[in-house]
Amino acid sequence: MIKAAVMGYGTIGSGVAEVLRINQDSIAGKANGGIEVKYVLDLRDFPGDPIQDKVVHDVNIIVNDPEIQIVVETMGGVEPAYTFVKAMLEAGKHVTTSNKALVADKGAELIALAREKNVNFLFEASVGGGIPIIRPLNSSLTADEIEEITGILNGTTNYMMTKMANEGLEFDDVLKDAQEKGYAEKDPTADVEGYDACRKIAILTSLVCGRQVDFQDIHTEGITKISAADMKYAKKMGRAIKLLASSRKTDGGYLAMVAPFMISPEHPLYNVNDVFNAVFVRGNVLGDAMFYGSGAGKLPTASAVVADMVDIARHLDCHIGIEWSSKKLELADFGKAENVFFVRTSSGEDTIRQIFGDADVIDAGIGGEIGFVTDVMTEDAFAEKSAKLNVISVIRVGQ
Amino acid sequence: MIKAAVMGYGTIGSGVAEVLRINQDSIAGKANGGIEVKYVLDLRDFPGDPIQDKVVHDVNIIVNDPEIQIVVETMGGVEPAYTFVKAMLEAGKHVTTSNKALVADKGAELIALAREKNVNFLFEASVGGGIPIIRPLNSSLTADEIEEITGILNGTTNYMMTKMANEGLEFDDVLKDAQEKGYAEKDPTADVEGYDACRKIAILTSLVCGRQVDFQDIHTEGITKISAADMKYAKKMGRAIKLLASSRKTDGGYLAMVAPFMISPEHPLYNVNDVFNAVFVRGNVLGDAMFYGSGAGKLPTASAVVADMVDIARHLDCHIGIEWSSKKLELADFGKAENVFFVRTSSGEDTIRQIFGDADVIDAGIGGEIGFVTDVMTEDAFAEKSAKLNVISVIRVGQ
Repeated sequence: MIKAAVMGYGTIGSGVAEVLRINQDSIAGKANGGIEVKYVLDLRDFPGDPIQDKVVHDVNIIVNDPEIQIVVETMGGVEPAYTFVKAMLEAGKHVTTSNKALVADKGAELIALAREKNVNFLFEASVGGGIPIIRPLNSSLTADEIEEITGILNGTTNYMMTKMANEGLEFDDVLKDAQEKGYAEKDPTADVEGYDACRKIAILTSLVCGRQVDFQDIHTEGITKISAADMKYAKKMGRAIKLLASSRKTDGGYLAMVAPFMISPEHPLYNVNDVFNAVFVRGNVLGDAMFYGSGAGKLPTASAVVADMVDIARHLDCHIGIEWSSKKLELADFGKAENVFFVRTSSGEDTIRQIFGDADVIDAGIGGEIGFVTDVMTEDAFAEKSAKLNVISVIRVGQ
Repeated sequence: MIKAAVMGYGTIGSGVAEVLRINQDSIAGKANGGIEVKYVLDLRDFPGDPIQDKVVHDVNIIVNDPEIQIVVETMGGVEPAYTFVKAMLEAGKHVTTSNKALVADKGAELIALAREKNVNFLFEASVGGGIPIIRPLNSSLTADEIEEITGILNGTTNYMMTKMANEGLEFDDVLKDAQEKGYAEKDPTADVEGYDACRKIAILTSLVCGRQVDFQDIHTEGITKISAADMKYAKKMGRAIKLLASSRKTDGGYLAMVAPFMISPEHPLYNVNDVFNAVFVRGNVLGDAMFYGSGAGKLPTASAVVADMVDIARHLDCHIGIEWSSKKLELADFGKAENVFFVRTSSGEDTIRQIFGDADVIDAGIGGEIGFVTDVMTEDAFAEKSAKLNVISVIRVGQ
C-alpha cells in the first residue's frame, strides 16, 4: 500500500479522499496494491470527517516521513503551495497538483526539480478539470506538431454564456444566478475577466512548445461586456458566443489570446454548453481532435488528481518526462494577429463603408445602431479603423 | 538514435515512415534523440520510395538484429502478424500495432508476453485511428469505474449514415459513393455489417474491465437495412441514425452491442459526422467525457502509431502496465438488455396499441405504414411482441 498526503482539504482535496474511498478496490488493482491517505495538511480540523485522525498542521511532518511517497497539492494559489511542493520534491516525494496558478507560474521550475530528483510532478487537474488533456498532450499527441489548441477552459463563464444565449438575459442577471448556484465565486473576477482561462492556455501552450509561456504576456479579454443585444445578433447570425482561450502557430511564432468569439455550428466547440469544458487540438499529421468533459466540480477534478496518483504509483522509480523548459517563449505580436470582427456602432452605414469597405450588415431588429462583420484584418488595422466609429461593442468572429 | 522496423508497408506502414520524416526534429526532442526506420518488411519492393534500401523480405533479419528496439506491425489480419509479433516480443523488442483484428484476438496473450519480457506492447491506433483513446483509458481514466463506453468507431459507415441523412439517398447509392471515394473497400462487409466496430468495442471493453472479451460474443448488427425511409422518420423525430458500438455496466455484468441507434441532438455523439470517430465515456466519478477526431486515414492513424513509438522510446527499460488478463469475461445476457425501439409496420394502429400499449406514433408522410416508438423494454420482450406485427424495420432509440 502506497502512502500519500493531501495538502489542502477544500473542495478538491476532500474529493480526492472521497474518490480514493469510493473506488478503493479498482484503484488497488491498477496502482501497485492501492493508495492510502496517511496525512491531510490543513489549518482547520475536520471532526466527524473520515480523515479526522489524519489531519496535521505542520508540513514538516509530511516532509520528514519517509513512508510518504505521493503528495497531493490542492491548496490553490502560488504561496505557500510553491514552498511546500518544492520541499516535497526535494525530499524525493512525487507530487500531483490541481493548482493552475502554481503550474502557470512555477511549472517549468518544478518539472526540472522533479527530473533532478527522479520523481514525478504531474498536474492533469490544473486544466480542464476531469478532462484528460495534459497527459494526452504529453504522451499521446507526441508524433505531431501542434498547430492550434483552442479551448473552452472555464466552466463558470461557459455556463453564463449558455444561459444568456438561451434566455435572453443580461450579464448581471446570469452572474447572480451563477453565484446562487455556486458556479461563480462571490468575487467572480478571475472567471469573468478571463484570468483563469489565461493561466490554463499558458500551461497548454507551454506544453505544446516545450518552453515557458508567461500568462502575463497573453492578450486577455473577459465576458463582462457581452450583452443580451450581442446575443441577439449572434442568434441572427446562427452563431454562439463562447469565451475561447487559444494558441496558434504562425509565421511569427505562437499567438495566444483569450477573448469571446462568435463561432458557427461547424466549429467543434459550438455545442459545448453549460459548465462543460472542451479542448480542440489541430496537429500537422493527426488533423483535428477534441477532448470534452466536466471542466470543474469536486469529483471530476478529483478524478484527474487520483489518475495522476495512479500514474505515479506505476512510475515510482521512473521519471515521466515532460518537455517544458524554463527558457521563455516570446509570443508573436498580438497587433499582427489576423481576425474577423463583428461590430455594433451608432455611426451610419455610409461611414462604415467609407472606413471598412464592403462590410456585411446584420439586422437584429435593434434600433439606433448597425451591426456589421469586417473582412479579415490585423488587430492593429482594426484598432485604427474602429477608432473612427462610435463603437458600441466588438466581438471577434471565429471559424 | 533508436532503431525501428516496420512490418507491412501499406497505407498505415508507409504513413508511419512519412510521419517520422515530416516531424523528425520534434520527435527527436521527445524520444531519446530520435527514431530511425532501419528495416521495412514487406513481400513487395518499393523502388523510388525513400525506404527502398531498407526493404527486407525475411522477418528473421529483424528478429536477429539486436539493434532493433521497436517494431511496428501494420500488416493487418491475425496471421502472420501474430506469429511475427510474438517472435519480436520473445526477442525482447517492443511492439506497437494498428491491427484491431490481432489485438481483439490475441491482445491479452501479447500483453502478458510483453510483461514477462519487460518490454511494451502498445496498440493506440487499433481503435479510433488518430484519436487518443487506448492510452487515456489505460493511464488517464484510472481513478474511475467506467460505467459506459460508447463510440462511433467506424468512419466508413459514419460517412454513409451522414450522407444518407443529408441527401436522402438509399444505402446502395451511398455505398457506391463511399467506394468511389476510397472510404469503403470493394468488399465492404467488415464495415457495413459492423464487424470492424465489434472488434474495436471488444478491445475497449477488455481494457475497461481488465478481462478478455471475445468479440464473437457481442451482439452485432450493421447498417445494411437502413433505408432512406428510415432517415425520413429520424429527421421527423429530430434525430440522427448512427452505428454505435457500446458497452454498459449493468447489474448482470457488462452488456456490449453494435447496432444503429437513433440519437437526439443532446447526445454527445449526435454531431459526429462524415468519417470522424468519437468515443463517449461515462465514469462513476468523472462523469461524462468524449474524445473526438479522425478515426481513420493514413496520417492520423500513423500519428497514433508514432505516438506509441515515442512512448516506447521513453519506456525502454520500464514496462507500461496494461490491465487486460486472458481470463474471459462472460457478457451479460443480451436478451435482458433494456432498450427503446422505433418500429415501422404495415399493421394497423389498433394492433400496435393492443400489443405495445400506449406507443408514440410518428407520421413521416409515408403511406401504407405506421412508425412508432415503444416504451423501454427488454430485447426478449420486444422480440416476442414484434413477432406479432408485420415489421418493416426496427431501429433502437438512444438517449
